Amino acid sequence: MPIPRNPRKEWLHEIIFEADTPTGKVFDITLLILIVASVLTVMLESIDSLASRYSRWFYIIEWGFTIFFTLEYFLRIYSVYRPRKYITSFFGIIDLLAIIPTYLSLFIAGTQYLLVIRALRLLRIFRIFKLVKFLKESSAIVKALNASRPKITVFMFFILVMVIIFGSIMYLVEGNQNTGFDSIPRSIYWAIVTLTTVGYGDISPVTNLGQFLAAVVMILGYAVIAVPTGIVSAEIIRGEGKEKEPSTNTQACRYCGKEGHDDDAIHCKYCGEILNED
Amino acid sequence: MPIPRNPRKEWLHEIIFEADTPTGKVFDITLLILIVASVLTVMLESIDSLASRYSRWFYIIEWGFTIFFTLEYFLRIYSVYRPRKYITSFFGIIDLLAIIPTYLSLFIAGTQYLLVIRALRLLRIFRIFKLVKFLKESSAIVKALNASRPKITVFMFFILVMVIIFGSIMYLVEGNQNTGFDSIPRSIYWAIVTLTTVGYGDISPVTNLGQFLAAVVMILGYAVIAVPTGIVSAEIIRGEGKEKEPSTNTQACRYCGKEGHDDDAIHCKYCGEILNED
Amino acid sequence: MPIPRNPRKEWLHEIIFEADTPTGKVFDITLLILIVASVLTVMLESIDSLASRYSRWFYIIEWGFTIFFTLEYFLRIYSVYRPRKYITSFFGIIDLLAIIPTYLSLFIAGTQYLLVIRALRLLRIFRIFKLVKFLKESSAIVKALNASRPKITVFMFFILVMVIIFGSIMYLVEGNQNTGFDSIPRSIYWAIVTLTTVGYGDISPVTNLGQFLAAVVMILGYAVIAVPTGIVSAEIIRGEGKEKEPSTNTQACRYCGKEGHDDDAIHCKYCGEILNED
Amino acid sequence: MPIPRNPRKEWLHEIIFEADTPTGKVFDITLLILIVASVLTVMLESIDSLASRYSRWFYIIEWGFTIFFTLEYFLRIYSVYRPRKYITSFFGIIDLLAIIPTYLSLFIAGTQYLLVIRALRLLRIFRIFKLVKFLKESSAIVKALNASRPKITVFMFFILVMVIIFGSIMYLVEGNQNTGFDSIPRSIYWAIVTLTTVGYGDISPVTNLGQFLAAVVMILGYAVIAVPTGIVSAEIIRGEGKEKEPSTNTQACRYCGKEGHDDDAIHCKYCGEILNED
Repeated sequence: MPIPRNPRKEWLHEIIFEADTPTGKVFDITLLILIVASVLTVMLESIDSLASRYSRWFYIIEWGFTIFFTLEYFLRIYSVYRPRKYITSFFGIIDLLAIIPTYLSLFIAGTQYLLVIRALRLLRIFRIFKLVKFLKESSAIVKALNASRPKITVFMFFILVMVIIFGSIMYLVEGNQNTGFDSIPRSIYWAIVTLTTVGYGDISPVTNLGQFLAAVVMILGYAVIAVPTGIVSAEIIRGEGKEKEPSTNTQACRYCGKEGHDDDAIHCKYCGEILNED
Repeated sequence: MPIPRNPRKEWLHEIIFEADTPTGKVFDITLLILIVASVLTVMLESIDSLASRYSRWFYIIEWGFTIFFTLEYFLRIYSVYRPRKYITSFFGIIDLLAIIPTYLSLFIAGTQYLLVIRALRLLRIFRIFKLVKFLKESSAIVKALNASRPKITVFMFFILVMVIIFGSIMYLVEGNQNTGFDSIPRSIYWAIVTLTTVGYGDISPVTNLGQFLAAVVMILGYAVIAVPTGIVSAEIIRGEGKEKEPSTNTQACRYCGKEGHDDDAIHCKYCGEILNED
Repeated sequence: MPIPRNPRKEWLHEIIFEADTPTGKVFDITLLILIVASVLTVMLESIDSLASRYSRWFYIIEWGFTIFFTLEYFLRIYSVYRPRKYITSFFGIIDLLAIIPTYLSLFIAGTQYLLVIRALRLLRIFRIFKLVKFLKESSAIVKALNASRPKITVFMFFILVMVIIFGSIMYLVEGNQNTGFDSIPRSIYWAIVTLTTVGYGDISPVTNLGQFLAAVVMILGYAVIAVPTGIVSAEIIRGEGKEKEPSTNTQACRYCGKEGHDDDAIHCKYCGEILNED
Repeated sequence: MPIPRNPRKEWLHEIIFEADTPTGKVFDITLLILIVASVLTVMLESIDSLASRYSRWFYIIEWGFTIFFTLEYFLRIYSVYRPRKYITSFFGIIDLLAIIPTYLSLFIAGTQYLLVIRALRLLRIFRIFKLVKFLKESSAIVKALNASRPKITVFMFFILVMVIIFGSIMYLVEGNQNTGFDSIPRSIYWAIVTLTTVGYGDISPVTNLGQFLAAVVMILGYAVIAVPTGIVSAEIIRGEGKEKEPSTNTQACRYCGKEGHDDDAIHCKYCGEILNED
């Protein structure tokens, strides 16, 4: 049974959720620019010299962004027929998390830096610019990563066990003469730094035996780095040729929130409601 | 000739070795939790601030775990018909090594840190949770690694020779002006750190010639890192499509200890003894 | 309508642009040597001890190279029939950028180091030595990289978002106790250093929570390094077998500047002008 | 025309060059052990604490090895019919280089460390132990590397140009405020350390712009590391299935020195001489 249509809701939905109409596109691009600007503001605010000089301006700008994003969040909820679907969706949660920290900062100092979570909202970019080609590629990567998840999980589990054993051995070997290896957890941190070939050098072995063991860990890491790469390569190669052209339509159903409608679709293929005419 | 059945042994065997019955599963999950807890205890004990404050508690908990694992070890030996098979198996050795260090610590200080070898017992996890999908993937990795072992061995041998030569040259070049390169073994350690792209920076060249040679080693390492990755990738790609569904049955024969029985098997397919029912 | 032929222009064009005739080849090889020499001069000039002792010589040599390259640049413009085509081409722009810094250094100190842009001119080497085999390989790499550009772009975008989030979290965690993490941009720099496994160690976490998070970033980076490698491997494997023998002819049309003519071509296949006889 | 046979030469040739007879095998294994021992001696001698205490012993042992290897070298020359072939072969040159440094050390101090070049002699190991399986794998790697050489060369050339450009830019940006970037060659060294993800941290950017540029170099390096790996992977995958069983025969012709004879061969297939019977 179709829900009775509400023209104002539909007009808002078309602007806020879709990028097929000129106003919808203008809205989305403005939004993107504001997101980038707000992320940059948070970053600049963290630089002490800037923060102390322009603290008042940062305060004003921050609240300006937050009020705008809060408004946008409630308009999104208002414009869909089934708000719960939007609120519990990936982007619904991100949109909420992107405004909460400013309000929290009234009570707890420092939380405004959590606003960088707004960066995640940038992922909308792929939808707005109809970056279909990119979306397709992205889904190919995601598929390959999904397919290799069990292999990677097993691999990571072995790495974890290995890193615990090696960390403990190094703690025994270096612990007395090296302030870096002052506990097993810290030695495990060293083993991870070494095995992943990051190698900060904040902790490094000084005894002969420690350096020999470290060399073993490195060579192992060298051979081992080949494994995830091989797994992912194999999956990507296997996945090629299976790719299909995804839909370029950005319409989202006002009732159930689902996307992926064909350009000539009149009814939502998931819930049967009538889609926006555009 | 079948060995005469012993119901108590069989009952114990079903609980300890198999995870098909509810009691068997409860036992195995309890065991896993205790293993994780005991590994965490060893880690926390290595942190000086905690060790000095709670030394008494650590002592008691440690002995608690050890006595439980010792008991479990002897029950395992008791419940199988051919104990020697279990004792000399991979997990049998790990199970023994997981309890010895506590007893050794009565005589030699510091050995309790070796208890982290218990982490290896965690590998049972794959069997207990019937992580068949994961086991399958794991065996694919292991097969790929096995298949590429000769290539990797040859490769490692060349790397070893290269690292000796480069280390010695750097010792000649940097030895006089750089306290880091104070012997050939240490220079070889540097060469390994560099070639594997770990790069701690605890030893780094300071002379012009030394930095030039280091750059050569790095670029070589850069080209060379491609080789094991390529080998493993090729093996994994080749190995795909050959994977078969492994058995999900966790039963182990009480006589010969072998696993991999079919769900409808009544006799062990390796020694002909009767398997546990259900 | 053919442009009337100008024998002097054509003679110059054959020497400067082509490498099919002995004089053409001599010119090109001389040019290469001078480019290498001028790049080396700039490098050596940057070493303080040399710069102060031989500053006069460096000044003279630098101007010598610049005057020669300026002359060459104008001869190139003169010898082609449609100079605009050359000036706006890739090598035309590089050739101009390779002489400007010396003139700029008359007004602004320090600009002469920009002369290393001459290094880009070395890319001509592939054309001059008819390194066809290499060119072919190069085009295979370029094709593979082009084909994987959308995937890599999506991947890089995700990395960027991830690095912003991780950098900010580390700023919150480490900011108070670690002078390295003194702003979000610097923490993002740290996150990039870590995720790419470079790991200078100029900034490294000191708190327990910070080291734990760093370990997470590293293991993530370890898994993630597999993705671009897999993408490029897949493209190169896919691209194999499609390679065609490219032309070894180095003739460039004097009118439209295009290359790729067959050895027996008399007219440019793009604009119909008559090619140099050689 | 066959060279007249010389039984003593042939007997020596069979012992020294071949590993098919018991005496030949004993000789070769003794040789390997002596090579390993002599390399270890050189390494240990470089450790100051050992060198000062046992300098006399090192001196005696070193000369012992050198005299033995010198004798062996001349016996090798004597036992082949065409000594020039052996002397100019890969192993002939290595064998000479492995003894020269000790004699040189009579005139120039410090040259004895060059003796580690003896490590290269260890490559004989593959032949002596008839490690055919390994040799086969090795030749697969070598083939893959050979096939990817042109691609790797082009790639390395681009890396070189990039590293020069980036090093110079960093010299301009960081040169004034950072003692690490004190000349363009050193900045290029930094660029190589960074691009290969080694990241010692002995030189690292301190300015904001410098850290931003460094981040660009790293991300570039991250994408770029994929290229050689992809190239080599593709070649190894392509090369699979083409592998043939290589000969396990270790006979070497006394006249032309060539190997690769079939087990039932009587005459050298390259020069027609009669091979050793055995």
